[in-house]
Amino acid sequence: MIRTQGTHILLELWQVPELSLSDFAFVKNTLIQATTASCTSYEGFKFSKCKPTGISGVLLLKEGHLSVRTWPERGYASFDIYTCGGEVSARKAMKYLVETLKPGKHNAITIERGFETNEAMQIKINEVV
Amino acid sequence: MIRTQGTHILLELWQVPELSLSDFAFVKNTLIQATTASCTSYEGFKFSKCKPTGISGVLLLKEGHLSVRTWPERGYASFDIYTCGGEVSARKAMKYLVETLKPGKHNAITIERGFETNEAMQIKINEVV
Repeated sequence: MIRTQGTHILLELWQVPELSLSDFAFVKNTLIQATTASCTSYEGFKFSKCKPTGISGVLLLKEGHLSVRTWPERGYASFDIYTCGGEVSARKAMKYLVETLKPGKHNAITIERGFETNEAMQIKINEVV
Repeated sequence: MIRTQGTHILLELWQVPELSLSDFAFVKNTLIQATTASCTSYEGFKFSKCKPTGISGVLLLKEGHLSVRTWPERGYASFDIYTCGGEVSARKAMKYLVETLKPGKHNAITIERGFETNEAMQIKINEVV
């Protein structure tokens, strides 16, 4: 039986140092390293500098994707972690991102997707990490 | 003032013809065309074939991202539409995806992200399209 279930975490970080969020190589490497932390591997990625500032990126996993968008001058970054490798894998990636970027505040929503039984997504608002 | 707000739609389609969801060029072109439908443009993309079947892809927008994962043998596909171009733009992309893939059923969750005032994400469970 092929399972369609996936865990999707929407993560928001606040009060992150501006220099971290405007450092292209640092943001890119952090997202790539999050795949290692969650024991997944990636197929490819695309990152871009935003105007006037900030970094946007997506990373295709074998079983989902990661994404990032940073607003350095607001100390804010939004992330997505979507994996079919289970909630543990997704939470490891989240933990790595929070520990690496050291936000003053963060919040997350976990959404369990792809339930064939009732065809509705299950939402959990987390206390995280 | 630089706004951090973004609209994120998590969209799930069920009962989609298996042939549509296993057609690499069709799935890729549909996601690319969704950017045109929503009046946005993209910076790059990465698509991959899954094992044993299915297609996975991410598309980096100037102001967010789109993603897709299909399970053809289950008639199921999950999409993400995250844009800082406003809810109207995101909903246009969603409408295009539903009209193009013609699912028997679909459901979506809209999440408004990046509110500086209360630093919490706002969730809306939609009746869509």
